[in-house]
Amino acid sequence: MATPPTDLQTLRDLATKIRIHSVECTAAANSGHPSSSSSIAEILSVLFFRTMRYKVSAPRDPSSDRFVLSKGHACPALYAAWVENGLIPAEELKKLRQLGTDLEGHPTPRLNFIDVGTGSLGQGLAVAAGMAYVGKFVDRANYKVYCLIGDGESAEGSIWESIAFASYYKLDNLVLIIDVNRLGQTGPTMLAHDVDMYKRRLDAFDFNTVVVDGHNVEALVQAFENANTVKQKPTVIVAKTFKGRDFPEIEDQENWHGKPLGANTEKVLKHLRSLIKNTGQLKYNIPSPLSEVKPVDISNVRLSSPPSYKQGELLATRAAYGKALTKLLASNSRILAFDGDMSNSTFSEAAKKNGPANYVECYIAEQNLVGAGIGAACRDRTIVFLSTFAAFFTRAFDQIRMGAISQSNINICGSHCGVSIGEDGPSQMALEDIAMFRSIPGSTVFYPSDVVATERAVELAANTKGITFIRTARAPTAVFYSNDQIFQIGKANVVFSTNNDQVLVIAAGITLHESLIAANELAKSGIGIRVMDPFTIKPIDKFSIIQNAQAVGGRILVVEDHYPEGGIGEAVLSAVAEERNIYVKHVAIPRVPRSGKPADLLNYYKIDATNIIGHVQEVLKK
Amino acid sequence: MATPPTDLQTLRDLATKIRIHSVECTAAANSGHPSSSSSIAEILSVLFFRTMRYKVSAPRDPSSDRFVLSKGHACPALYAAWVENGLIPAEELKKLRQLGTDLEGHPTPRLNFIDVGTGSLGQGLAVAAGMAYVGKFVDRANYKVYCLIGDGESAEGSIWESIAFASYYKLDNLVLIIDVNRLGQTGPTMLAHDVDMYKRRLDAFDFNTVVVDGHNVEALVQAFENANTVKQKPTVIVAKTFKGRDFPEIEDQENWHGKPLGANTEKVLKHLRSLIKNTGQLKYNIPSPLSEVKPVDISNVRLSSPPSYKQGELLATRAAYGKALTKLLASNSRILAFDGDMSNSTFSEAAKKNGPANYVECYIAEQNLVGAGIGAACRDRTIVFLSTFAAFFTRAFDQIRMGAISQSNINICGSHCGVSIGEDGPSQMALEDIAMFRSIPGSTVFYPSDVVATERAVELAANTKGITFIRTARAPTAVFYSNDQIFQIGKANVVFSTNNDQVLVIAAGITLHESLIAANELAKSGIGIRVMDPFTIKPIDKFSIIQNAQAVGGRILVVEDHYPEGGIGEAVLSAVAEERNIYVKHVAIPRVPRSGKPADLLNYYKIDATNIIGHVQEVLKK
Repeated sequence: MATPPTDLQTLRDLATKIRIHSVECTAAANSGHPSSSSSIAEILSVLFFRTMRYKVSAPRDPSSDRFVLSKGHACPALYAAWVENGLIPAEELKKLRQLGTDLEGHPTPRLNFIDVGTGSLGQGLAVAAGMAYVGKFVDRANYKVYCLIGDGESAEGSIWESIAFASYYKLDNLVLIIDVNRLGQTGPTMLAHDVDMYKRRLDAFDFNTVVVDGHNVEALVQAFENANTVKQKPTVIVAKTFKGRDFPEIEDQENWHGKPLGANTEKVLKHLRSLIKNTGQLKYNIPSPLSEVKPVDISNVRLSSPPSYKQGELLATRAAYGKALTKLLASNSRILAFDGDMSNSTFSEAAKKNGPANYVECYIAEQNLVGAGIGAACRDRTIVFLSTFAAFFTRAFDQIRMGAISQSNINICGSHCGVSIGEDGPSQMALEDIAMFRSIPGSTVFYPSDVVATERAVELAANTKGITFIRTARAPTAVFYSNDQIFQIGKANVVFSTNNDQVLVIAAGITLHESLIAANELAKSGIGIRVMDPFTIKPIDKFSIIQNAQAVGGRILVVEDHYPEGGIGEAVLSAVAEERNIYVKHVAIPRVPRSGKPADLLNYYKIDATNIIGHVQEVLKK
Repeated sequence: MATPPTDLQTLRDLATKIRIHSVECTAAANSGHPSSSSSIAEILSVLFFRTMRYKVSAPRDPSSDRFVLSKGHACPALYAAWVENGLIPAEELKKLRQLGTDLEGHPTPRLNFIDVGTGSLGQGLAVAAGMAYVGKFVDRANYKVYCLIGDGESAEGSIWESIAFASYYKLDNLVLIIDVNRLGQTGPTMLAHDVDMYKRRLDAFDFNTVVVDGHNVEALVQAFENANTVKQKPTVIVAKTFKGRDFPEIEDQENWHGKPLGANTEKVLKHLRSLIKNTGQLKYNIPSPLSEVKPVDISNVRLSSPPSYKQGELLATRAAYGKALTKLLASNSRILAFDGDMSNSTFSEAAKKNGPANYVECYIAEQNLVGAGIGAACRDRTIVFLSTFAAFFTRAFDQIRMGAISQSNINICGSHCGVSIGEDGPSQMALEDIAMFRSIPGSTVFYPSDVVATERAVELAANTKGITFIRTARAPTAVFYSNDQIFQIGKANVVFSTNNDQVLVIAAGITLHESLIAANELAKSGIGIRVMDPFTIKPIDKFSIIQNAQAVGGRILVVEDHYPEGGIGEAVLSAVAEERNIYVKHVAIPRVPRSGKPADLLNYYKIDATNIIGHVQEVLKK
């Protein structure tokens, strides 16, 4: 006989228990967000004890429904739900926010029931949409994805990118809940309690929209059941709630954001305890997943065939990105490429022909592109590659930053780097991308200098944990690696040397090619330089840089098509920081560049072969 | 007798001339976007020759209506309008996109008729909204702001942040035009030609919405006239257009994005020329501004009174930001502070009491916050200060990047830097902000270490061109500068030294305070260190760093509450790059940090006084 669903009074009591935990643990921590937790207590009790199908024993089982708490600061309520369902010991919650527990101030995936870190607002829906996309088009499974956002964060444009995305792909396995508790940090939100306005806006984006009293468990149960019946549309539940619900003298009042209840704690707890009707052990029933979803193998993915180029052939590294995607797809059907209406420039269009299970068109919305990619990578369902112009990933820096906190495995390929793109001008030139991606903890930054290296960078990225970035170029350059060259992360290659090297030139991409021209010219006049291709800028090959620098008399010249800060030059300087007696000259793009022909710009900004010869001659005086 | 408005046939002919110029100049450049220019030709001819009130002789006169071309790649059409109104010589346009002309691939404010650089899509509306806000609430003038966006870029969330902002502030002096030409770069946009869907969405955001045939000059004239009559709502004109309009065999076809017409050029030009009805000199009338708006004085702004603190008092630098804003406001009414629902944390709330002419609440929408700030700073109407948590400015990296291209003068204050914020955890900690702001060309990065320094940093920022960033901290720290201390950009202060210094410790903010504790401890055991406060991380005081490092035997220790890449450490390494014989040890936050009490975290990540003593002892061995 089937167990009956959790009854309504039990859901009410569970909501109250969630509130009690939230007040107690934030009081113990003397910080945190009890009022923001309280407004979502019924939403969580209904989701976790009646609606969602999941396994408490295996919180991230691929079969289970997903839940993303976009308003991460309300995590005391979420932790409380997992205390009540038995996963977390109640005593652990008392350690909230202390060094030594994973019950942090905002959710972290070090917790086994958290898919992604949240806390920078407006990002959860993109993640949820990415999960739902995978459920619908890749897994073709019947798990659902629930995402709870705050009303304050609905002002974030990223939310609207994801709303448009969910609508466009008719993600009927996605349920968005907006906690309209009226109050932001400093006062009322833009729309305050105008739930009809939320409904109008979401209607216009073709969502199935339901407005409910967010503290009425019966209404919530019905709204989630309604969501199950609607096909070809995502659902939004606009829940009218009150911040600090059931906290006497605090409910719906301003100036209670992000504060423990202090002197009010005991009074509030007493009131909350008085609300509980079931005095004994609560009886609830958490429904099981509708069907089993098996793990997939996304490990050890290889190019289906090795690079096959002729040395000297002129080819753009961005084209090799497309080639490599094709070859990875031939090896593993779980490759999922995302692009932002740039696929014919980035060459991610190579993945398009396989249909929606391998290519996601995100249109011009880079924040959702990255967020959805992070979602798609969750629970190891797919190997994610994201591409657009490298400059435009600056649009998603916050998402990438949160991706690192989320321990996300995503691979990002940014094309059109540097002034060498030419006529389109500075708005399209990535000149800070290396700085940005180097600053991401645990990231790997590839800067492949020819098509052979690019194919291998893509292959290595597919098998590397954390966030990887591959910088590709617009302009064709000569193939100079042999097809059987072996590449390793953190391993530089010396690509030119003489019997009498006096300067170590470190360069990548277009400036490596210019350095090779310079090296040949200099050799004719008897000046030997050693040219190094770092391959990865992070990690950088510290050992090889120091060893080679010492071999040439401690003279390094770095030439890069990037702004001076945070790029190859500073990576090299960090590598040699603890060495005395190494001189480093660093040449980069010193200011906002202009439009022009690529060759004109390389010369104007002094990073072409002619100028490199001059820089070497200067370095030789040191 | 008043000159009659430009007649409709002339507007049609001007549109055709705009197309002809666009085809010709992109053919000459052999690159660019003629098809995207063609879809907006009638919109521009009506705006520039009938609707907009401006002075050709003084394109950025404060009295004039503003125009922002958010879809910057269509700039050939914009340049053509300014050729036709007589500002730009026609021959200049033939140099399009070459090094040496300011007619770049995307608009640059080096051109005297451009307010902001565009080209990274989805940013123009925020800028326009910022201009309109200033027009309505600060200038209280009757100029209008027109912003033309592409349909593709309407997928950017930043657009929806600005739509919500414009609606909330009832910016009836703002007119948004959406060029619905159906096609993005790689194919149809999400909504293709569904102009009704655009209307529904904008209706839901309470805009006055008008749908027109964007190639019908009469309909456009009427729509703009309608916009003039509607109060308390911004207007959007949803213009149904065709990409490549009037280019035979190219109009409305795919695969013509961002390409000159090549072999089709002459055929298209011939057809276009055949469309012109007025054979002689075109007679048009550009209306003058309704009233004169005077320049304002935003130069040489000073704190109304000097800092007034007691040495040793515990105060947070973020609080001094609020104090300094108050003092600047007392000196100049044109200070305009923006915040994203964080004003009680960043202390920008100090500016709130003066009302909307000095404080703009942007709610939780950081992209619009920065974009609107850039708009508000245009034409030197206001001195802009923007604040939120420093971590959340990563959300607007692309806007800040474009701000540099726009030669924008905005001042950004990011609070809650580093692990020292404690319990809230990594999502709220800025640990890559210095890297980000250093990478912005021409930026100034302040990292004041006490409240005296902070007040002076704010004062210096108000008078500094370009993008400035001030990094403030959550936790109170001791005042150690005297109230009459003089601060200069690029000038470090040695804040501790002994007769026998052996290591130069460079630190800022919380780590400077920890270094001072360490210095006192070390002094007791006879080890002398010199402690330097760089004050600005960019520009960094290269001269003083080298001089002091040499004085202590070439030993530097950098300790910072930031990730290792792109922060103080790499700024110092860049400063000493060309010096042999300087050893640099660099201690920073090596990975995603955890939640915890601030003191626990400083210790755990080895940047507190106890650990600094250990680091110094290690450095002494070198």
